This record gives sequence, C-alpha cells and structure tokens, in this order.
Amino acid sequence: MSGEPARAVAPWTDDTAYRQGVVDLLGIIAYGALTAFERLAEDGRMAADLSDKVHLATMAARQVAHFERVRTHIAGFGVDVMDAMEPFHAAFDAFHSYTRPKDLLEGLLKAYVGDSFAADFYREVAAFVDADTRSLVHEVLADAGHADFVVGKVRDAIEADTKVAGRLALWGRRLVGEALSQAQRVAASRDALTSLLTGTVDRPGMDLAAISRMFTRLVETHARRMSTLGLQS
Amino acid sequence: MSGEPARAVAPWTDDTAYRQGVVDLLGIIAYGALTAFERLAEDGRMAADLSDKVHLATMAARQVAHFERVRTHIAGFGVDVMDAMEPFHAAFDAFHSYTRPKDLLEGLLKAYVGDSFAADFYREVAAFVDADTRSLVHEVLADAGHADFVVGKVRDAIEADTKVAGRLALWGRRLVGEALSQAQRVAASRDALTSLLTGTVDRPGMDLAAISRMFTRLVETHARRMSTLGLQS
Repeated sequence: MSGEPARAVAPWTDDTAYRQGVVDLLGIIAYGALTAFERLAEDGRMAADLSDKVHLATMAARQVAHFERVRTHIAGFGVDVMDAMEPFHAAFDAFHSYTRPKDLLEGLLKAYVGDSFAADFYREVAAFVDADTRSLVHEVLADAGHADFVVGKVRDAIEADTKVAGRLALWGRRLVGEALSQAQRVAASRDALTSLLTGTVDRPGMDLAAISRMFTRLVETHARRMSTLGLQS
Repeated sequence: MSGEPARAVAPWTDDTAYRQGVVDLLGIIAYGALTAFERLAEDGRMAADLSDKVHLATMAARQVAHFERVRTHIAGFGVDVMDAMEPFHAAFDAFHSYTRPKDLLEGLLKAYVGDSFAADFYREVAAFVDADTRSLVHEVLADAGHADFVVGKVRDAIEADTKVAGRLALWGRRLVGEALSQAQRVAASRDALTSLLTGTVDRPGMDLAAISRMFTRLVETHARRMSTLGLQS
C-alpha cells in the first residue's frame, strides 16, 4: 500500500462548497423524482383507460428507481437523501400547489413540459460535476418513452377538439412561469448550487454571457417541445 | 431431435380448462397488483411524513414490478394481461369503492389485512398449478417489509389513542366481509378458476372437507394478523 488512492473524480471534489453543490443538485433531483412519482400516480388515477393506467404506473415506478439510485449516490457523499431534499421541499411544494392539473391532459402536459424543462436545466448544471455524478444525472433524467405517450395523447385531444390547443398552450406558459419563479427562489438561497454553474477561482463555470446563452437554449428547447405537441409556447 | 420435448410443467398444462384457470389466477393477481399500486400511491399522498412517503412509493413501485412479471408469465400462455384482467375489474372495483379509507391508518390496514388475506388465498390455489407458475405466485406475493411498517404505525396509533383500536377492528371486519363477498362473486362466474381448487377427474384438487379446512386456515391467519396489530378480529 503506497502512494495516493486512485482518483475516479476531479480533484475539486474535496472542496466543501463543491460537494454541497452536488448534494444540492442530487437532493433536487431526488425530491423531483418523488414528486414526479406522486403526480404520475395521480395522472394514472385520472386515466379512464386501463392500458394508460399501466403506462403511468410504470413511469411512476421508474421514478422510485431513480430516487433509489440518487439516494445511494448521495450516501457516497456521506449525506442522507432526506437531509439533501429538505431545502427544496418549499419550492417544489409551492410549484405543485400553484399548478394543480384540472384533468388528465393538464397532468400529462405538466409531467412532460415541466419535468423536461427541469431535466434540461439539471443536465446543464451536471456539465460541471464529476463524471460519476454526471452520468448518474443523465441516466436518471433520460426519457423512458413517456414523451411519445404524452405527445400522442395531446395531439389526439387537439384533433378531437381544437379549442383544447389554446387552453393547453396557456397551461404550458403558466407551468414554465411558475417553474422559473421557484427556480429563482432556490437559486437565491443555495449559493453552493449556483456556484456549480458559475464556477469559482479553482473550478470551471459559466460567465454571464454563457448563462444567458444557457437560458436561451432552455427556452428554445421548451418551444420546440410545445410545437411538437401542436401548441404555441 | 427425437422423442418428446422435456416437460418442465405437469402434463395437465395442455388442458384448456386448466390453462384458463391459471390465466384467471394470474389475471386476478395482475389486477390486484395494479390496484395495490394505486392504493399505496394514495396512502403515500395521505402520509404527512416524507420517509413514510418514500416507503409507500417504494412499495407501490414494487407492485408495478410484480405486474410486469405476471404480464410476462401470462404471455407465455399466449394471453395478453389486459384480457386476463378484464373479468375481474368489476369485483375489484366494487371492493375498492365499498372500502374507501378515510385516513392513512385505514389505508394502511386495508393494504395489509386485505392484501394479505387475498395473498393467502392465491397461495392456496397456487398449490394446484404447475411449478413455474407456483413459484412466480409465491415470489410476487412475498411481503417486502410492508407488514412491519403497518404493524408499527397501527400500534403507535393505538398507543397514542386507545379508541383507535375499536374503529380499526371494525374496519378490519368490514374489509374481510367485503373481500369474501366479492370473492364469491368471482368464484360463481369463473368455473375454470374454481376447478383449479376442486380439481377434475384428471387433476388433483380439494374435496369439500379440505376446502372448509382451507377457509378455517385463512380466517385463523387473518385473526393472528389482527392480533399482532393489537386488534380484535
């Protein structure tokens, strides 16, 4: 036994602020998975068709598997997932209480548009974390076929009644507006998390111009998704 | 290539009525898993404590995994799980609409007492099916730690307020009463399923005395469970 142990991760993973930022990112993703489970289960309850229920239950179960993987990864940082999620309860719970779907279509759009927007953002942040954490984040955020399901349902609904498109377009704007306002609330209170994006003297990060380009990317991707659904963003 | 193919299953698996009985048994278990998913998710929604929510979400996700395993096994009989479940929608849906939990405790007791009673019965029937099906049934019905969770919660609640015991004991009786009445409805309409238990000229089964002993076993096991919870049955 001689020399230093092999490093699987970047040297700045010893940095306390960095580690706190990663734990924050993972805590958000874990709590996001739990709330996604609840909402998908609720969408399943609203679904009239049994094969839709099966699809939604399957998607919900997958969120629990994601939660478990993130829980294990956070434990590697010496942190309990319950503690890691705690700072984000208020923002998530506020988002969900302001955006309760009135029916299955609104629920489906919320899961698709809201979760995809959040996932895009988490992937942007994950560009600045160690390779193990980054690949975990990408795996748990990968779409598992729910997008196609939602696109099909929303398009069918619009085809059956064109008025649906206007209502869902408004709903999509409201979801993104609420998501951004809760994200700002989180950013303002969690320096370690925002410093993952902005970097520090010792760590790479985005300057203001890069952050502004990132928001442009997020909004453009969102607009593309809405347009795939046949909805204006 | 000579001789007959090796038989992994009993010779009567070619019997149409037998196969229909097995598909019925698996259809019931599959639909039971889906409805258990919904109820556990609903219990999770009622839970105030986040670690309880995580436990209930994990249990719910496991039901989806069970559903998938049963779906695959039924497909081996050339039957789609959606078709296999169809004859049992009415009985399950009636059971659930007559036994809506008013709070988390009632939900927990329903999951524990109701599902355990049903699982005991399915295992009795599974004694008369081929070995592959039997081991699948045993695996998907095995308790995964939910019993301990429920026992802990119910006992805590009784300790905090002894009046709870009377209310939950009544609730337990109502659950079993409704379950038996729906089970009779299913038995009356699914000859292939009941003939798994009673046997045929070519297949072993239970005579009336054995069936009566089976019901005694089911009721005794139920009473033991209630007593573990600190409840009268």
